Amino acid sequence: MSATAKKLLVDVHSHVYLPRYASLLRSRSSVPKICSVTTSDGIPQERLLILNHEPSGGRPVGSQYWDREEKLKFMDKHGIDVSIVSTANPWLDFLSAPDAQLLASELNNDLEQYCSTSPRTSNCNYAIKRLYGFGLLPLVPEITTSAALDIVSQITQLPHLRGLIMGTKGIGRGLDDAALDPVWDAIEKAQLVVFLHPHYGVNAEVWGEENNGHVLPLALGFPFETTIAATRIILSGVLDRFPSLRLLLAHSGGALPALSSRLASCIDHDPIVASRLKHDARYYLGKLYLDAVAYGPEELGFASDVIARADRYNPQSSSTPVLSRSIGSKRMLFGTDHPFFPPLTSTEKWKSVVENLEAIDRVQGWSQEDRDGVCGANALALFNLIQ
Amino acid sequence: MSATAKKLLVDVHSHVYLPRYASLLRSRSSVPKICSVTTSDGIPQERLLILNHEPSGGRPVGSQYWDREEKLKFMDKHGIDVSIVSTANPWLDFLSAPDAQLLASELNNDLEQYCSTSPRTSNCNYAIKRLYGFGLLPLVPEITTSAALDIVSQITQLPHLRGLIMGTKGIGRGLDDAALDPVWDAIEKAQLVVFLHPHYGVNAEVWGEENNGHVLPLALGFPFETTIAATRIILSGVLDRFPSLRLLLAHSGGALPALSSRLASCIDHDPIVASRLKHDARYYLGKLYLDAVAYGPEELGFASDVIARADRYNPQSSSTPVLSRSIGSKRMLFGTDHPFFPPLTSTEKWKSVVENLEAIDRVQGWSQEDRDGVCGANALALFNLIQ
Repeated sequence: MSATAKKLLVDVHSHVYLPRYASLLRSRSSVPKICSVTTSDGIPQERLLILNHEPSGGRPVGSQYWDREEKLKFMDKHGIDVSIVSTANPWLDFLSAPDAQLLASELNNDLEQYCSTSPRTSNCNYAIKRLYGFGLLPLVPEITTSAALDIVSQITQLPHLRGLIMGTKGIGRGLDDAALDPVWDAIEKAQLVVFLHPHYGVNAEVWGEENNGHVLPLALGFPFETTIAATRIILSGVLDRFPSLRLLLAHSGGALPALSSRLASCIDHDPIVASRLKHDARYYLGKLYLDAVAYGPEELGFASDVIARADRYNPQSSSTPVLSRSIGSKRMLFGTDHPFFPPLTSTEKWKSVVENLEAIDRVQGWSQEDRDGVCGANALALFNLIQ
Repeated sequence: MSATAKKLLVDVHSHVYLPRYASLLRSRSSVPKICSVTTSDGIPQERLLILNHEPSGGRPVGSQYWDREEKLKFMDKHGIDVSIVSTANPWLDFLSAPDAQLLASELNNDLEQYCSTSPRTSNCNYAIKRLYGFGLLPLVPEITTSAALDIVSQITQLPHLRGLIMGTKGIGRGLDDAALDPVWDAIEKAQLVVFLHPHYGVNAEVWGEENNGHVLPLALGFPFETTIAATRIILSGVLDRFPSLRLLLAHSGGALPALSSRLASCIDHDPIVASRLKHDARYYLGKLYLDAVAYGPEELGFASDVIARADRYNPQSSSTPVLSRSIGSKRMLFGTDHPFFPPLTSTEKWKSVVENLEAIDRVQGWSQEDRDGVCGANALALFNLIQ
């Protein structure tokens, strides 16, 4: 890999509501939906509601959610060379099986088009486009396995789609559902990256009665949901059965790194599960990929510690386990969560992006090469962007 | 403080169901309750059920849950000099206001007796007993403020009670309820330590349909609940209004350290709360105390990073902020969670305790003095055990 390629900035956590999807949301009368309102200043505005009982009547949405030019402008402003774009939550979760299947196929083609017709990255010797995508699977109740596998196959054949984004519901019973094994198998064989992303959080009663805007469901509910989903995947043995599965967890894995030793201890002390898995729970964290969307250098450093220590729990490890944040950094990848988290007041660059870049820059124990890896080189390798 | 005193091992997370409380649980027909069953081997057994729909018909309980001699034997076996004992969840949450008030008063007197008649610590020059306690407040719906304040006053007057244990419900609306301000005020003035402990977790549907024993609610639900409660406390401005409150979070603060930069970012980006607090959310983590019940050295090191970095967000800080795990270690305290997490097979020492001690021993960046602090000296100071 050339030094030039290593310096690319690649955003693996970047969302879009493709025009076809936005039209669908506009046509709906229940969440998820986009509705037109008039602000108190008399200005027409579209607002997005994705959850029931959403505070503040949803959030304002505009062209940054669907227009590719806006995505490219955002990328230019922040020095992002390449984005791996994914449909934002709640994906197809609310559709019937036939509708989900049709729309998955159409949106995957749309996203392929969105990416394949994007400009070439200029800051690089390779023939890399500026946009690649995560496709969508029609994972809804009553979908047949063969229908889901057809879409995995479709994604595999669309050259600019390099993975798929997945919520936590599976086909209604979560991602620890044994019925998903053929899907995991196909995804593993196709070497597609699964971007595991939250939407539902936990029950809203736990947030209490005070008006804290979106803070609690976003800051806590989202990472809790990802943590639960990944833990259930681990507990169900999916990573024993599909050890080459490439799972990328949103928001740096949420609370999973911080609770992984407690998880290992709880498993050890519970007769129902103590003998079920091949490895200590902490082993599996070394199989995961984490985006670097955690907003602080200590969080990123810790996540890389947790990935690195997984080797301690690997009986096949030939070397003396060494805790090195460099090892952990190899599985971490820069992301922005664009177009979410826009600054409240207009700024040259988005604070959320600047914070995540600064966090990468300030992790103690990461070399410049590690930082370059997290910023781009890891993604180039994971998504096979340069051969 | 003498070198001898520094070497004491103090357990700040140690539970008891006092005989009066165990009798109450035996008398009940709905959870929480203790029921008598006969095992498949024909052996009579008592089982504790504290949550609805608890898997495996609850857990076996015996004298280790109420007998002081068993507590002392456990302490001797593990080299624990002093334990700060607390009633286990769900405390008085299920009682009417009059019953909760009466029982709080009675159980606080019982616990004072339990501690005051305990032996003196031999491994020390000071007149320290082996047992101290966290009292109980009657925090249930419809309790009057004056009734709650009466019990704060009672606890303050019982010399072996040095704090109180608190669940997350408050008087029914959580700990961000402004009605609790007089209680926080009294607790702050009395310099009592509030041990914030989970019980309810989150909605059980998120754990799915697979039988994973108690793993998910214990490994994830408990820390999630603590994280939510502490975050709601921060968001409500309690720590701005009562900056000297001594809050000790169970299980090393759950997911709060790992999600604190995300929390700060979500607050910054939400118009409802962006201007509410005096400080960045991360500032308040430096005001907290965390037990060291996280089962891994990386977790403890990270938690101490997060406490230490709080000073970066303190505009009054006179010194250049230095990230030092030593600073963070001063607010972390060894705990066992005894009598929970007994080993599945008989062992000389409990694995859960050994793991937590080894974790303290292996944190990178902690000096021997820091480790001694986490093991005991921090608790001696926080609970005013040596003057």
